[in-house]
Amino acid sequence: MPSLRQYFPILEWGRTYDRSALSNDLIAAVIVTIMLIPQSLAYALLAGLPPEAGIYASIAPIILYAIFGTSRALAVGPVAVVSLLTASAVGQVAEQGTAGYAVAALTLAFLSGGFLVLMGVLRLGFLANFLSHPVIAGFITASGILIATSQLKHILGVSAHGHTLPEMLGSIFAHLGEVNWITLLIGVTATAFLFWVRKNLKPSLRKLGVPPLLADILTKAGPVAAVVATTVAVWALGLADRGVKIVGEVPQSLPPLTLPGFAPDLLSALLIPAILISIIGFVESVSVAQTLAAKKRQRIDPDQELIGLGAANLGAAFTGGYPVTGGFARSVVNFDAGAETPAAGAFTAIGLAIAAVALTPLVHFLPNATLAATIIVAVLSLVDLSILKKTWGYSRADFTAVAATILLTLGLGVEIGVASGVAISVLLHLYKTSRPHVAEVGLVPDTQHFRNIHRHKVETDPTLVTLRVDESLYFVNARFLEDLIQKRVTIGCAVQNVILMFSAVNEVDYSALESLEAINQRLKDMGVGLHLSEVKGPVMDRLKRSHFLEELNGQVFLSQYDAWRTLTAPQAVEKAAAQPAP
Amino acid sequence: MPSLRQYFPILEWGRTYDRSALSNDLIAAVIVTIMLIPQSLAYALLAGLPPEAGIYASIAPIILYAIFGTSRALAVGPVAVVSLLTASAVGQVAEQGTAGYAVAALTLAFLSGGFLVLMGVLRLGFLANFLSHPVIAGFITASGILIATSQLKHILGVSAHGHTLPEMLGSIFAHLGEVNWITLLIGVTATAFLFWVRKNLKPSLRKLGVPPLLADILTKAGPVAAVVATTVAVWALGLADRGVKIVGEVPQSLPPLTLPGFAPDLLSALLIPAILISIIGFVESVSVAQTLAAKKRQRIDPDQELIGLGAANLGAAFTGGYPVTGGFARSVVNFDAGAETPAAGAFTAIGLAIAAVALTPLVHFLPNATLAATIIVAVLSLVDLSILKKTWGYSRADFTAVAATILLTLGLGVEIGVASGVAISVLLHLYKTSRPHVAEVGLVPDTQHFRNIHRHKVETDPTLVTLRVDESLYFVNARFLEDLIQKRVTIGCAVQNVILMFSAVNEVDYSALESLEAINQRLKDMGVGLHLSEVKGPVMDRLKRSHFLEELNGQVFLSQYDAWRTLTAPQAVEKAAAQPAP
Repeated sequence: MPSLRQYFPILEWGRTYDRSALSNDLIAAVIVTIMLIPQSLAYALLAGLPPEAGIYASIAPIILYAIFGTSRALAVGPVAVVSLLTASAVGQVAEQGTAGYAVAALTLAFLSGGFLVLMGVLRLGFLANFLSHPVIAGFITASGILIATSQLKHILGVSAHGHTLPEMLGSIFAHLGEVNWITLLIGVTATAFLFWVRKNLKPSLRKLGVPPLLADILTKAGPVAAVVATTVAVWALGLADRGVKIVGEVPQSLPPLTLPGFAPDLLSALLIPAILISIIGFVESVSVAQTLAAKKRQRIDPDQELIGLGAANLGAAFTGGYPVTGGFARSVVNFDAGAETPAAGAFTAIGLAIAAVALTPLVHFLPNATLAATIIVAVLSLVDLSILKKTWGYSRADFTAVAATILLTLGLGVEIGVASGVAISVLLHLYKTSRPHVAEVGLVPDTQHFRNIHRHKVETDPTLVTLRVDESLYFVNARFLEDLIQKRVTIGCAVQNVILMFSAVNEVDYSALESLEAINQRLKDMGVGLHLSEVKGPVMDRLKRSHFLEELNGQVFLSQYDAWRTLTAPQAVEKAAAQPAP
Repeated sequence: MPSLRQYFPILEWGRTYDRSALSNDLIAAVIVTIMLIPQSLAYALLAGLPPEAGIYASIAPIILYAIFGTSRALAVGPVAVVSLLTASAVGQVAEQGTAGYAVAALTLAFLSGGFLVLMGVLRLGFLANFLSHPVIAGFITASGILIATSQLKHILGVSAHGHTLPEMLGSIFAHLGEVNWITLLIGVTATAFLFWVRKNLKPSLRKLGVPPLLADILTKAGPVAAVVATTVAVWALGLADRGVKIVGEVPQSLPPLTLPGFAPDLLSALLIPAILISIIGFVESVSVAQTLAAKKRQRIDPDQELIGLGAANLGAAFTGGYPVTGGFARSVVNFDAGAETPAAGAFTAIGLAIAAVALTPLVHFLPNATLAATIIVAVLSLVDLSILKKTWGYSRADFTAVAATILLTLGLGVEIGVASGVAISVLLHLYKTSRPHVAEVGLVPDTQHFRNIHRHKVETDPTLVTLRVDESLYFVNARFLEDLIQKRVTIGCAVQNVILMFSAVNEVDYSALESLEAINQRLKDMGVGLHLSEVKGPVMDRLKRSHFLEELNGQVFLSQYDAWRTLTAPQAVEKAAAQPAP
């Protein structure tokens, strides 16, 4: 039953699951679980949700992805950018901290899951391609800056708000007088410690002779150490009474059964953000999954990935979570730790379920500042302004798209930023193809090759103009070609024949067809012949479905050399002029 | 001073103006003036403005276009589609018949003129190309239907409103009980008469031995005859007292000096409609101008046309008019009547100025139903549903764009209709290029040619895959190529080398570059070499600005045959695998 296996990849790898895979998967699960506990709490904070939502969002989604997903190493759960997008979208329909806010987050996950499954069933994975790499890179970088900035209030212990960089900075600045110095001390220390762990702990441990696997686990446990140390400090010194904000009561339970909201107002308000989150989450997830799959010569199926991620989000919607996707950091850790199959994810889910039941009372005194430090250290690795330099060197159009995306995301928020980025890259593409490269070519002596008359020494004939069009012809450049030919023919009064060399024309749409008809008519009115050469099969097939070839005031030549030979010989030139097509 | 002449084309043709040109221009002016008097009144009615606005909009604009425009035959003034767009835009900010309505129309002309001049100075004429021919054809057809429908209320003598087909028909239906039978009689008779004049008068007159020029003038005077006959009837029989709506008092004056409104609210409300009107007007005008210019082997300069039309609209804004553009019908009449230079337009303006001063009292009793008949007969020639059939035969994508534009324009109004048409044609183009044609090619025996392995008998090598990409590589199809190669390589375990044949790749943007880098890295991880062949100069120049060529796990070959020869010989294959680029 190949089609059943296509929709349930678990049937594929499950058949051959053995003891060695089991032990590899178990080790990976332990490492990932240690890393995920503080991260899940932190991302929930970023999304504006209670901390347990982050844990819940990592349990059912992981298991559902393990059943439906095609990547063997992808770890699904809350990620930084999607958490930020959730905060931005849900913040527009509900007040943070209210029951409505949590329900809106579930609804967002539900819509996102539904949209992803729908895209997968309709095999619309290609829609994600409308996000160009520079736009994604610019967006991720700007999001990292926004996320880090949004956490400053937790480090400073002030209340601030805003969804854009100017708003956030302005709001923090306005509340600077209320800084809680103990919170600041905890936040700065935790941030510095986590940066040091990330940069220096592993090499230091290795120098001390600690074996690599242990060094790796200890490094991954850095955030856990920061959590434990600051929690103990707050509890022992009674800092919560001195204004240090703490996580507080966390229910001690397995993921609850929850229902998203189905009010039409709520659904319609969250639909566009859900689509945006789905596409951005999908792009991030597929990039990671593809990179990891290629390392083991495996394949992922983007359309089935949509179904896997959709199922994960639907799972999040009904178990107290919020929108999830495949995360870069957690997936790489999972892969590096040796995960062989999605079962590693299932074991991680079990580890997190145990944490949800057993460990939640222990985080009561955990200061928010520590979680903010975890987020800041994690997201600053996303910030990569080198994309500006790289695109500047390669292409001004791509640079413009990156720079605009970064500035608009920082200045006007994530949703406008990414939407403008897409619009700008589409417009730049249209602009580039609106003025295609068109070379006037002549015959390279003693060959059958035709090259640009401005770059090469070639033979030309004053009665004959050959234009090689280096772009598909469609509505954006149709008129350009009309103008160009009009211009070329009116300046050369001796011109009797024009040849369009179509070797690089992959398409002629209806607008371009009408332009060709107009060009043909105008040249006919001037007594000039129009000929085509080297037309590709599919283009020719299409032209045959119109009346253009019947009305053509000239011929279609298989090769440019045929055209040249026929039209430069004087009698041939006369023949072409004397025999316009009926 | 070539640059001065560029901005003032009048300096060009003015130098050589002679007596023969003068007499031709004068004859053309008389014919066009006769045609324009009823038409101007009618289009003002369509735009919801007092009748004199139509005359005023034909005087200053014609003269300004004669100075700045580059077409020798284009006749500028109110046209049907722009009048409809004006009614739709101005109707959203002011009540018809109020002073605010007229000021808003002036403001719309002012913004439109400013935008056109700005586009011209910035040389942004290419923006008009984003309107594909099918979208324009669909839009014009749907507009024709909307305009004709909007006039039914004048024919029936009822008051109705609405900017979409369902609104208009619903409103007319609701008021059917109020039909004024005398108005209906006048309207139906005038419409039938004008259809008959348009179809049959000229051949009939010619059969009766009337000379061609006179037959032509008499045919053009058909609407004038209808105007005179119905006006006299209404006056003589006192029909205005029996409920027949008439034009009424028209001020007897030259175009007045007027000021558009500069209130920020008004300007911002009209900005988007003004841009839309400018672009649609520009496209219509340039198509006409180009067609007429080509007949005399003349050229028009689209960017200078923007300035000419912009000046005309600014003129309309300050002389009691409303947005204008180069009209199809009037320009063709002007051209056919023998106009040689823009001076013909200036003489037309003088004729209309005389009419404005001397003839306006005579139209007092002119029934609106006659003007509506004039409009209906004029616009029904715009309706051409054959575009649906033509595009259906040629390309489903173009058909979709036309059909959507027609349906959305009729159902949701002109602005949404044309904007959706543009968006749909852009999306369809992106969709088409998102899945480019990629052929796996092999060597045609005894040649150096490579052709599709599925269409031709060719030599292949199980260790070597050559893919010919028939599209520029950019963000929309970058991931497609990644997936395709991943798929192809994972199904052929013997594959040692992949060649991408770039003969039809006209561009590689930054997204595609990153995809190529990812493909290279993945193939490297699998121990497979990646090679390029037949890379075009500009693409190669760009690739050299990145690190891709240094990191390429293979070589770049000038020709595909070189690549084949090098990589199929066993020792060469080994060499390529053993020498990855640094």
